[in-house]
Order: sequence, then C-alpha cells, then structure tokens
Amino acid sequence: MFEILHKDLAGRVGKLYTKSGILETPAIFPVVNPAKQTLPLSEIRELGFKQIITNAYLVRKHYGETVSELTIHSVLSWDGVIMTDSGAYQLMEYGHVEVAPLEIVKYQVDIGSDIGVILDIPTRGDVPYSQVLIEVEETIRRARQALAVRDIVDPERKMLLVGPVQGGVYLDIVRYCARQLAKMDFDIYAIGSVTSLLENYEFRSIVEMIIAAKRELPLGKPVHLFGAGHPLIIPIAVALGIDLFDSASYVLYARDNRVILPDRTVRLEELRSDYIPCSCPVCRRYSVKELLEMPEHEREPLLAKHNLYVLKREIDEVKVRIREGTLWEYLQEKAHANPRVLEALTALEQYVDVLERLTPVTRGEVRGIFIYSYETDRLRPHYRIHIYRVARNYEPPPGKDILLILPEYAHDRPSNRSTHFIAVCNKLLHEGLLDRVHICFFSPVFGIVPHEIADVYPLAQYEYVRNIPTVANLGVNAAREYIKAHNRRYTAVILVLQRGQIEVLSRIIHEVAPSLKILQLEIQDQVSIIRSLNTICSMVRLLSSSAPPQ
Amino acid sequence: MFEILHKDLAGRVGKLYTKSGILETPAIFPVVNPAKQTLPLSEIRELGFKQIITNAYLVRKHYGETVSELTIHSVLSWDGVIMTDSGAYQLMEYGHVEVAPLEIVKYQVDIGSDIGVILDIPTRGDVPYSQVLIEVEETIRRARQALAVRDIVDPERKMLLVGPVQGGVYLDIVRYCARQLAKMDFDIYAIGSVTSLLENYEFRSIVEMIIAAKRELPLGKPVHLFGAGHPLIIPIAVALGIDLFDSASYVLYARDNRVILPDRTVRLEELRSDYIPCSCPVCRRYSVKELLEMPEHEREPLLAKHNLYVLKREIDEVKVRIREGTLWEYLQEKAHANPRVLEALTALEQYVDVLERLTPVTRGEVRGIFIYSYETDRLRPHYRIHIYRVARNYEPPPGKDILLILPEYAHDRPSNRSTHFIAVCNKLLHEGLLDRVHICFFSPVFGIVPHEIADVYPLAQYEYVRNIPTVANLGVNAAREYIKAHNRRYTAVILVLQRGQIEVLSRIIHEVAPSLKILQLEIQDQVSIIRSLNTICSMVRLLSSSAPPQ
Repeated sequence: MFEILHKDLAGRVGKLYTKSGILETPAIFPVVNPAKQTLPLSEIRELGFKQIITNAYLVRKHYGETVSELTIHSVLSWDGVIMTDSGAYQLMEYGHVEVAPLEIVKYQVDIGSDIGVILDIPTRGDVPYSQVLIEVEETIRRARQALAVRDIVDPERKMLLVGPVQGGVYLDIVRYCARQLAKMDFDIYAIGSVTSLLENYEFRSIVEMIIAAKRELPLGKPVHLFGAGHPLIIPIAVALGIDLFDSASYVLYARDNRVILPDRTVRLEELRSDYIPCSCPVCRRYSVKELLEMPEHEREPLLAKHNLYVLKREIDEVKVRIREGTLWEYLQEKAHANPRVLEALTALEQYVDVLERLTPVTRGEVRGIFIYSYETDRLRPHYRIHIYRVARNYEPPPGKDILLILPEYAHDRPSNRSTHFIAVCNKLLHEGLLDRVHICFFSPVFGIVPHEIADVYPLAQYEYVRNIPTVANLGVNAAREYIKAHNRRYTAVILVLQRGQIEVLSRIIHEVAPSLKILQLEIQDQVSIIRSLNTICSMVRLLSSSAPPQ
Repeated sequence: MFEILHKDLAGRVGKLYTKSGILETPAIFPVVNPAKQTLPLSEIRELGFKQIITNAYLVRKHYGETVSELTIHSVLSWDGVIMTDSGAYQLMEYGHVEVAPLEIVKYQVDIGSDIGVILDIPTRGDVPYSQVLIEVEETIRRARQALAVRDIVDPERKMLLVGPVQGGVYLDIVRYCARQLAKMDFDIYAIGSVTSLLENYEFRSIVEMIIAAKRELPLGKPVHLFGAGHPLIIPIAVALGIDLFDSASYVLYARDNRVILPDRTVRLEELRSDYIPCSCPVCRRYSVKELLEMPEHEREPLLAKHNLYVLKREIDEVKVRIREGTLWEYLQEKAHANPRVLEALTALEQYVDVLERLTPVTRGEVRGIFIYSYETDRLRPHYRIHIYRVARNYEPPPGKDILLILPEYAHDRPSNRSTHFIAVCNKLLHEGLLDRVHICFFSPVFGIVPHEIADVYPLAQYEYVRNIPTVANLGVNAAREYIKAHNRRYTAVILVLQRGQIEVLSRIIHEVAPSLKILQLEIQDQVSIIRSLNTICSMVRLLSSSAPPQ
C-alpha cells in the first residue's frame, strides 16, 4: 500500500507499506553488494537508513538456494526493508537471459525480499530504435508473465513487485512501455537506469524520460528512478513524481576518490583546500590531506559514508520542501548549481499541464513565493494557475465600467488592505462615485490584480527581484492577458501609476483594446496618491458623465 | 601582518598573523559573552574554531582590572585568537561615552587582546544625515587619538587595532569615513554593524556599504564586517573583499528557536518535518520533536551549535571556491536562495571596474565558467574582461580582409582545434585562398571569437543554458561590439552558420557597418560544413576578385 501524505508540484511525501516496515518516501536505497560491502551495513543503519537494495542475481550466485531457507534479512543481518534488483544487467552481460525471467521472480519471493523487480531488459545507450522496440516488447511480455508467476508463488503479495519502464531516450517507446505496464497490477513502477545520462550531466534527457513515463503511469502508485543517486537530479525528479531512488554512486564515486557535494562532485585530489566543506562526521574528523594519505581500503568507506550523508540530507531537504510547499523555490536554487540543471528545469514546460493539475492551490504554511526570472517563473504552476484563472474563470463585477488601476507596494500588502486603497475607496464611496469604478492593482509580476482577490495566495505573498528588467515581462504579459479577456466589461481606464508603468499599460491597452478611453495620473509614491484623491474623483466624474454600458 | 594567498573576484584567502597564532581568512569569530556563555567554549573549539570575539566593556564590567593581571586568555581559558570589541554600542546605550574612548584601547591592550577595536560611534538606523556626519567626524577624531594612545601603550603593536568605518546607509559618509581612516595606520579595517539590515534582508544595502568602504580602504589590509553572521550574505561579502566576520547570530537565533540553514532561516516550530535537513552532529542526534520538547536551557546550546556548524561550513565553502576560482558560480547559486540576494548580486554593477582589475585572468585549476542569464553574467568580470580586450586590445591580423564566421560546437572545443575548422583551414590553404581570410567563430555567449584566441580561458571552458532566449543576448551584444570595433579591417563577411544565427549577425552588420558585403551559407550541423568546403572556396574566390584593401 502507498499512502500520500503531502504534495507539492507533482512531488509527494508518502508512506510505503512493506512486510518489514513502513518507509517514508521519497527514499533512497543504498546499493549493497551481497558478497563484499565497502561500507558496513551497521554504519548505513547508523546514518539513518531503514532500507537497502541488493542484487538478487549476485545473492544467488554467492549463496545459492541456501538463502531461501535463511531469508535475505538474516543473511545480510538487516531487519529493515530490503529491495532486490533482478540483476537484469548482469544476466544480460553474461548471456544467461533465456533461463531466468520467471525463476528470478520466484527466487526473490523465496528469499523474502520486501520489494522485488522483474527481469526486464534494460535499454542501453547505443542501441538503435528498432532493437529497443523489440526489447521493450520483450520486457512487457515478461512483465505479464511475472505477474502470473507472482499470483502463484506469492498469492498474498507479501513482496511488492516492481514493473520497470524501459525505452531509454526514445520517448515514444518509454511512453508506450509505461502505458502497457500501467494496465498491469504492479505495486511499484520504475524507470530504467539513467546512470549514463547522469554521468554526462544530461539532466534534461532524464527529465524528459520521467515526464514521458509519468504521463502514463497511475498517480497513486510509487515510482522508482533507477541509477539517479545524485543531489543535482533528486529534487527535480521528486518534483516530477519520483518516490524512490537507489544509489550505488556513494560507493562507486568513493572508489574513484569523488566527493559528492549538494551542488557538484569534486575529486578529492582537486579539492585545493584542507577541508571538505561539509559538517558530516567524516569531514569533521579528517582533513583532505589525511584522507589522501591513508590507504585506499580505509579511505573508500569514509568517502562512501560522506557521500551517503549528502544523499540523505538531500532527501530530507526535499521532504521538508514538499511539506512547506517551497519545492519550486528549491528547484530554482538547484538550477543554478549547474547550467544543465536549469536546462532540465525549463523542460518542465512539457509537463506544465499535469503540474498545474497536481499542484495544491494553497500551501500548508503561508510562505511567500520567490520570483527570479521570466524564463523559469512563467512555468511555475502557482503562477500559471493564477493567470489562467483570472483570464478564464474570473468575472469582473457587473456595472463597474471604469477600470481604476493603482500601484501595489511591497511594504503594504495585501493591496486591498493598503493605506492608499482604503483612502481611494472611502473617497469614491463618500463622493457617490464607487458604483461604476472597479479598482485593480498593477503587480510587477501578476499584472492586473482585481482588488477582490488581492489577498488570495500567492498574490499577497511573493518576493521578486526588483532590478532585473526581464522579470517585469511577467507582469506586462499577465496584464495583456487580463485586458484581452475582460476589456469588453469596461468603457474606460484610469491609470494612477508611475510613469514607466503608465507607458507600458497604455501601450498594451492601445494594442489590445483601442476603443477603451484612457486617463492618466502620474504619481511618485503612496503618499502622492493620497494627496491626489480629488483629482481621481474628477477623472471618475468626467468619465461617469457618459452613459453607463448596456 | 596580512598575507594574501589566493584571489578570486575581490575575495581572497589569506593569513592573518596575531600574537596568539595565525588565522586563515576568511574567518568568522563566534561572539562569546564573558559572563554567561550559552555554548561552552570547549564546544566552540571542538567545532574547529581557533578564534572568538568578546566584549571588552562587558569584560571590564564583570572582571574589572583583575583581568589585566591574568590576561583575557586565561580568564576565558582560550589559547587561540581573541578579538575584543570596544563595547561602543553598550557604552552609548548606558551614556558613558565621554569617559572611555582612550581608556578602552589601553584596557584591551592590558588584558592581552589579540585584536582590539577603537571606541567608535556606531551609526544607528534611525539617525538623520546631519547627525551621522557629526558622529562620523567624532569616530575619525577618536581613531586618530586611539592610534596615538596605541603608540604609547603598545609600541610593539602586539595587539592588532581595528578602525571601524561608519556612516550606515549614507554611502557618501561611508566613503568619506573610509577615506579618512585609510590615511591612518590601522592593522585591520571594519565596516559598521549591518545586523539590522541583515534582519530585514536588505542585502543590497549591505553590498552598497561594502563597496563604498572598499573603494577607499587599502587592498592589502584585512576588512571585518560587523554583524553579518548569515550564510546568505557571507559569500557575496567575501567576493567584495571582506575577510573577517563575527557572529552573535548563532546564539541569538538559537534563543529564538531559529535554525540557520545554508539558504534560509527556519523557525523550529515551523519546520514541518521530523528532521532538520543537515548532517551536523546535533541534527543527526536529535529529531525536531525531541528538540522542541526539551527545556530551553538544553535546546538553546544545541541549536547554537548547529547554527555555528552551518556558518563554519559556509566559510569553508567560500575558501574552496576562491581557491578553485569558482566564486562567481557560487554567488549565482546563492543568489537563487532568495530574491534579495540576487538583487544584491546585480548591485555589483557599481563595482565592476574594481572587480575587473582584481580578478585573476586565469584560474588555478582549469574549470569551466557557468553562464545562466543575461542579467548576471554580463556583470561577471571574467566575461567583461574578455569582451573588453577583444574590442580594445585585440588587433585582427593585417591583410586578411574577408571575415569568415563559422559556428562553435560545444562538443568540439576549443574551436580552433575542431574538425570543421581544420577542414576549412586546410581546404583554403590548399586552394591558396587563406591569405585574405580571417576565420572567427560565433559563440552564443562570447559573440565573435577570432580563431587565434579561441582556446584562451574562458573561451573554450564554459557551459551555458542552451534554451533560455535572453542568454543569447550575451552573444548578440558581444558580436555587435566586435563589428563596431573592427569592421574597418574587413571588406566582406561570409557567414557559414545556422539560419537563426545568420539572421541575427546580418542584422547587426547591416546596422553597424552597412558597407560590408555579406555572403551567407546556411548549414545544419558540423558535417554539413565539411560537405560545403567547395562552396566556401567559391565564395572566397568571388570576394577575392575585388582588390585587397589598402
């Protein structure tokens, strides 16, 4: 069973029930070699991991059938969750493919694995389209058979069975494979190994693969991403709805003297410093020099441990972000750790429809959203949802044919409780002029914001970068959408704004709704609006003299 | 003595020699209360700190003159570096200002402080311009007197004396104060407390203050920034040439249940999670629930310890970045932790002349530079230096009047060793056409890059975000600069590029140098260039038929 507790974007914090305990997701499974383990399992447990993944093929090769009497938990002395991979890759390499497909499912059940994987055919990087298609058909066929075998050998479904989506960079094959597997009753889905893409910083391709698969997979099932054990890919993968990861990287990188950091990987020899910038026990205890001077068999487990600490922290951070509803903020931060990550973030354009559907409209905690740039923020679901709603679902109040646009001041939000709004409102009411006036605000980010909704999340809770011109494009384009959608409801517009804002808005109105009358009042600051109340009234009076709209 | 070991931007890793040992800078001094210390000093030492700062006024109030017999080191049981603040703020609050100025310098020498501060008048936030000016004049007067006192009580200058620049947000006063102090012989300079600006996320104001002061202060002296103990401001402050920090924040925040993280501050109660996403010993040991449930006097030192770990990691990271030459990359990352930090980064525009002068032209290690956006990267010194040099210092080779522009391919850099360049070059040579042809590359970021320098750092070592349109403005504007500077050296241009690139470049050439002849050859990829060698030769031949330039 998989239970979803918190959501943000397409990411979720959930609970995965296994026969050896409940796992909070997102979670990462450290890869453990059944024969020879670099980092003792006791240390992995001490780090806070309740789950590991090992290779059923290697277990069988090493321990044979004896394990099934003992169970894998007692052999590895691990009382937490054990996931077993089918060893598809190894089997393929050694040419035993034909023997094992169904046998290996039964073997995983026999040894008491909590989560088992069917013997699929992993898509390799250098294989042409037509062959990948044939291999994927074979994977689908085996998936069907594996489920049939499972029903016989594990009718109570004690072992959760994983159906891996393959297809590599051929996105239509990925999607086809996902669609076929989605029809079958797997407990967990997986997306084929992305290790080589990760090594080459091809984050955008990984994101495209995930999107292709997730479009077809059932939203209620957990999804594992094979071979994505790096902090640069974890947050965006989670944001797209990945719940489970595995990491052999912590050991493989350690073997290679590579240190994983939250924003990059550094070779120990190239770290021109005496310390690794990290607070984990390894980095607190040993200097770079000490690490470099110790023998390999001492250094390797230490670096593996450090790497695992970094991966754990990353998963913890992502969980906090989902609970807070600030996952997008975190993605923007990560996106500036490496240009390839920002490229991957902009690929979310292809998934924006799903993200909009899944993103909760309100946040658990009221936290502001952070707006940095035109390029990324126009993709942000919270932003798009607002713009869409104001253009499509919102109706300006009837009879109010004079649109009065006031500025918004960051220090006095929500704008519909601001000093200048209250002053203008009271004055118009007092003069009997409010009936025909619809007051809106010009937000540098959200465009034209009707006063009735100016306190709705996130309109009053955002921070933006004030001195980057392209950010202002967000507000300009949003204002254009508003005028396009609602100009027929108005006969005239009064702009009480700063000079630059008046120029921009009057240009847009001329363009989109040339028949709208425009009156302008240039102001400097909040105080100057309050000093101009009489002028504003005269303008409204002047416009009111013409007949109201029919 | 202050020795600078490594530089990047205006930041430096250095060694500060004190009578109690050598301090590697940048360094942060945890603030220690001489009377009542939340976190035991032994724990501060265990965290890896060799330095603390305490308050001379409070020391005197608490221990009186007895300390001078014992020395401050024995009273606090700290054998590392001790900096003492003069307690200017406290003295001012209690109205004792008139008594102490010279006395307090002598007192700091007497108690054996390693680094002492004169009794200045800290600029407070709510004080008008004219009063700040009067106060700053008083600070300058006292600075002069303090140095005279120092020459008498500490002629061997065992205690390093700090001259604090004041003036608050009045930048011209800051600059004036810095200019006056720069004429005096202080060992260390300081910039007045920015605590309240920090609390209000006014990072841009802090950056402007630093820039104003640093413009006047001698580059060879270390500079301390008072009250800037937060990871959001440390990297940019270091990049501007700040070497020393102090932090009372680690305790004050802890008292308030505030948890410092590398990218923000979170209130423990609001952290809707069971763990703080951090690998430090405190966060590994205690869950959020446990921390919240323990009594205040147990929780406070634990949170203080966590906060100090985060600050230490930040300083370590910045040092690594300076050594690597990737400080700008780190600033860009930090800038996306909060919009106010990005605003502060764009304020570097005001300091770009100095940064260009100070930035080392080559990096220690050959690492690529990361290009994310038009807004920040056009400010980056490495970038500007290249553009400036190509426009001003570079001379196209004489006699070569046909400018042939080829594309650049990220997978085949440096471009002057790329397959297509070598093919074109050989072909033209073989056909006897190379004499009049100057081959350049069109870089999406650096504009027009002459082949002779295409392997110079950072032209061959950069990564950029490929699918953000505004990033391409960098290349377009750089190309315009090249054509403006050098069009008189050419009679014609041959564009062998993709369609979009041809459109952009021919528009620029028409605009800037309408008399240049343009021939175009639209290509798809690297292979299609190699297939078009004959066409390229014909184009050169056609243009060569006209007389060479005089």
